[in-house]
Amino acid sequence: MTTWDMRFRALPGIPLIQPGDDLPALIAKAAEADDLAFADGDVVVVAQKVVSKAEGRIVRLDDVAPTPEAEELAERTGRDARLCQLYLDESAAITEVRGRHVVTVHRLGFVGTGAGVDMSNVADRAEGYAVLLPADPDASARGIRARLHELTGAAVAVIVSDSFGSPVREGAIGAAIGIAGIRHAEEPHGDADLFGNASKPMMNRVDEIAAAASILMGQTAAARPVIVGRGVPHTVDENASIARLLTPQPATRQDGSPAPGA
Amino acid sequence: MTTWDMRFRALPGIPLIQPGDDLPALIAKAAEADDLAFADGDVVVVAQKVVSKAEGRIVRLDDVAPTPEAEELAERTGRDARLCQLYLDESAAITEVRGRHVVTVHRLGFVGTGAGVDMSNVADRAEGYAVLLPADPDASARGIRARLHELTGAAVAVIVSDSFGSPVREGAIGAAIGIAGIRHAEEPHGDADLFGNASKPMMNRVDEIAAAASILMGQTAAARPVIVGRGVPHTVDENASIARLLTPQPATRQDGSPAPGA
Repeated sequence: MTTWDMRFRALPGIPLIQPGDDLPALIAKAAEADDLAFADGDVVVVAQKVVSKAEGRIVRLDDVAPTPEAEELAERTGRDARLCQLYLDESAAITEVRGRHVVTVHRLGFVGTGAGVDMSNVADRAEGYAVLLPADPDASARGIRARLHELTGAAVAVIVSDSFGSPVREGAIGAAIGIAGIRHAEEPHGDADLFGNASKPMMNRVDEIAAAASILMGQTAAARPVIVGRGVPHTVDENASIARLLTPQPATRQDGSPAPGA
Repeated sequence: MTTWDMRFRALPGIPLIQPGDDLPALIAKAAEADDLAFADGDVVVVAQKVVSKAEGRIVRLDDVAPTPEAEELAERTGRDARLCQLYLDESAAITEVRGRHVVTVHRLGFVGTGAGVDMSNVADRAEGYAVLLPADPDASARGIRARLHELTGAAVAVIVSDSFGSPVREGAIGAAIGIAGIRHAEEPHGDADLFGNASKPMMNRVDEIAAAASILMGQTAAARPVIVGRGVPHTVDENASIARLLTPQPATRQDGSPAPGA
């Protein structure tokens, strides 16, 4: 029998999350019911959606008053003007509008669509609720990490993940938006290749782990928002920050005009 | 003890690959020495570099005669004009030049830098060899898949992977450039979320798997170019093609002027 280097498990039994829920306690309970004892060095990947819901980052569209700017964006995209107002509120810039897609730089620096605002898996859509990204996803990750340590005694790394599309490839992949206890990137030990040539490619480790976890999360009705990874090579970092992973984006106006690199 | 859903193993004992090597035979031999018996449904991720080397996709820079266009690119980037000639030969378009970085659309449609041409892990750099991407990476993946089936009896999926940088995040992550026996993307079963709302996000499954494998591959001197995944959810597809994953790129000239979406 071979020894597997790296293993992932989707925790079964995570309930639908409500605002105010003690998410780490629910994670610890689900792990225990699954006979999974957290160990130092495990990586716990948590879908943004459940983090946001536990933190109450839910907005009722009826409570949003769209500005003329939002009305204009709604007309261009065929989307609800109140939802467009949330895109504007949550983003530092809108860099492109392509059909219904609104490409945004989130105020935290994430380049994606719709500023991370999402209406799926909140409630019946007719009720009109939207979920925003956590206010500070690194702080969310740190909070989950600290509480899991308190509850289980294990020092795990935590990644809060979301799905991002790509301008050059179809479909979305998982990526990190908040991290705790894990360095964002890895550089190879030594700076030389097998032949002694200088070579120092930096690997975006946290996005690779979020992508791996996304394979098991599924989407939509899958309801597997928490993935545990074991044997996942990474560097412990008590001062981790997702900002270090983000390439500074050019200043852009919110008028939908294309920006370089968008 | 918990049951792990998904497991990955870096095959130890893959030797330095030479042109003409029977790469699948070396993979099968390494697996056997590692007590790993391939099973139907395993996913085998193979680094582009070793595929290219086995296929002899190695160019001696002394054999390359740079055109004036390549000389100009060399002047702009501070790179070897013969290497720049390979960038031009291998790409359909150069969409941006930023310092030493040459952003290219490879003739097969991959958006990256330097048209996938790489000088690391080939030989002492002073000897001046470069490795190109496989001529047809899907065909490479199909060949490895067929030969592994012949040698081991197992029907595995094969992904040929490379590392790609991102315009919005630091560092590189693994991504697929050739696939066999695996559908490029997954759509959730049913088109509704947990509350019955219409929702159909497509997930780029092969890039997520390549990213997961990249975590174990390491870079540079790591020499772990073959990763085996077990329990990795995917759809078997006998007519898989990486082209289906690629967003068509706008036609651009090779003069380095920026193109939209690059």
